[in-house]
Amino acid sequence: MPMNSMNDCITYMEKKAKIVNEELQRYMRGLAGSPALIQSAMSYSLLSGGKRIRPVLLLAANDMMFGSEKRALPFACALEMIHTYSLIHDDLPAMDNDTLRRGKPTNHVIYGEAVAILAGDALLNLAYEVMISECVSQGPSALMTAQYIAEASGCRGLIGGQCLDISATGQFTGEEALKEMHMMKTGAILKAAVLSGIALNNPGDDMIDAMRKYGYHLGMLFQITDDILDCVGSPEELGKSVGKDKDENKTTYVSLYGIEKARELARDHADRAMKAMKGIEGVEFFRLLAQYILERKK
Amino acid sequence: MPMNSMNDCITYMEKKAKIVNEELQRYMRGLAGSPALIQSAMSYSLLSGGKRIRPVLLLAANDMMFGSEKRALPFACALEMIHTYSLIHDDLPAMDNDTLRRGKPTNHVIYGEAVAILAGDALLNLAYEVMISECVSQGPSALMTAQYIAEASGCRGLIGGQCLDISATGQFTGEEALKEMHMMKTGAILKAAVLSGIALNNPGDDMIDAMRKYGYHLGMLFQITDDILDCVGSPEELGKSVGKDKDENKTTYVSLYGIEKARELARDHADRAMKAMKGIEGVEFFRLLAQYILERKK
Repeated sequence: MPMNSMNDCITYMEKKAKIVNEELQRYMRGLAGSPALIQSAMSYSLLSGGKRIRPVLLLAANDMMFGSEKRALPFACALEMIHTYSLIHDDLPAMDNDTLRRGKPTNHVIYGEAVAILAGDALLNLAYEVMISECVSQGPSALMTAQYIAEASGCRGLIGGQCLDISATGQFTGEEALKEMHMMKTGAILKAAVLSGIALNNPGDDMIDAMRKYGYHLGMLFQITDDILDCVGSPEELGKSVGKDKDENKTTYVSLYGIEKARELARDHADRAMKAMKGIEGVEFFRLLAQYILERKK
Repeated sequence: MPMNSMNDCITYMEKKAKIVNEELQRYMRGLAGSPALIQSAMSYSLLSGGKRIRPVLLLAANDMMFGSEKRALPFACALEMIHTYSLIHDDLPAMDNDTLRRGKPTNHVIYGEAVAILAGDALLNLAYEVMISECVSQGPSALMTAQYIAEASGCRGLIGGQCLDISATGQFTGEEALKEMHMMKTGAILKAAVLSGIALNNPGDDMIDAMRKYGYHLGMLFQITDDILDCVGSPEELGKSVGKDKDENKTTYVSLYGIEKARELARDHADRAMKAMKGIEGVEFFRLLAQYILERKK
């Protein structure tokens, strides 16, 4: 499909998100036979919308390499299951104690804490059931993909980042410590999304290197704009609570530098993300996406 | 090694448990570089002893097929990581609210709920990192092994069983409902342990079938003796709280049938477990193990 304007980029994202949503629904129907309560709690959070940025990134990286969408889709879905489990657990009273997510009450508000913990566990486990089953049929390149995702989800990635965040109760001593936390908590999975999308298609080292850089800057860009939106966004548009960072006296890019300088930093990361892709063909979507995240209102 | 008496069986288990413990320590040292707090919380529960029944079962099934211990050990460790994560989450205040486990304060008592949730998540994720990494080097039979473990850990196994347990708040209408819950919560992983131990070594259908039956009866035996011990055991010997089932008015094999009949049921499952292995060579350990669990005091 054409990719000349921001509209093309948005249309592409919506098309891919729709494909992901349909496949996620199929996975949820596949749970029939397991206890109804856990199915319901898993589906509630997994099928509640969201931008599906991570799976879309994986599918776009796969498209760029002219890969088979059928092969990539299960991994895209697994990534969204992992993202959703992390949101369910992060929202728990013992963690960030959030009651609104994607415009709806959070999982534990509806199902209670015990079931919310289990629904998160079950989505994490399902992600691996799906990936391992694909590896059985797809072979070595699929295993490489699963490995990128598994590493980004663990102690050195997503979970480690969340641990730094809650143990510092949001207080970081400077940009380096803040950056380390965010690179683990948000950046690792975004980087894994683009890397795993190309990993299915035997990428060369140059391509891996470019995607690694792109993923890094996109992760930073994503986080800085997240901090800005928590300050200037509305809960209606964002579908989640806002102003929490300030209320909880959290260190953010905005608290460190102020809004204007944070916006400048975001622009800089967007530029660097685009530059990382220089010389590679078929990367229009990735350039537009960086622009899209820079300008996002939600 | 010889396997003629209960002493041989116990010596074998201790030897294998020691190998598992050393390898688990190695995995924990491998976490260096991730946040110290999450490493500490993971190690606290994972390295706190326990009988290591699940990994020992996997290694014994692998031994029976003359498999390589080097190949089987990572999967045995992954199984123990999964078991430990499930204990950490089950012990949380929102779930069973237990404060004593393996003779020590539970994870959340030491680290707080938030870190305990993350430590559980991280152990589950690490189990898959370990297994996927082994699949990269070991190939198809390892993937089959990972698949047995992944399925037993999910909605139709461990997590589904825990969901049934907490949503019924321990109240089941009869033996069938109670059995369904236990077969998912305890039985699925025990069955996966023996199946995955043989899966590494290209087993024939007869062998798979025998192991499936053995695993089923061993799971039932394990659960019934667990119910009996909660009634007659001491917290010192068991290293965990006792009498909770009665206090919480939970349906157990003892509450359904009384101690004597429960003991008879346990004996029956032990007999059936042993019979499942009839005609297969080298199964002395498995027969002695059923006897051992039948007579266990902890």
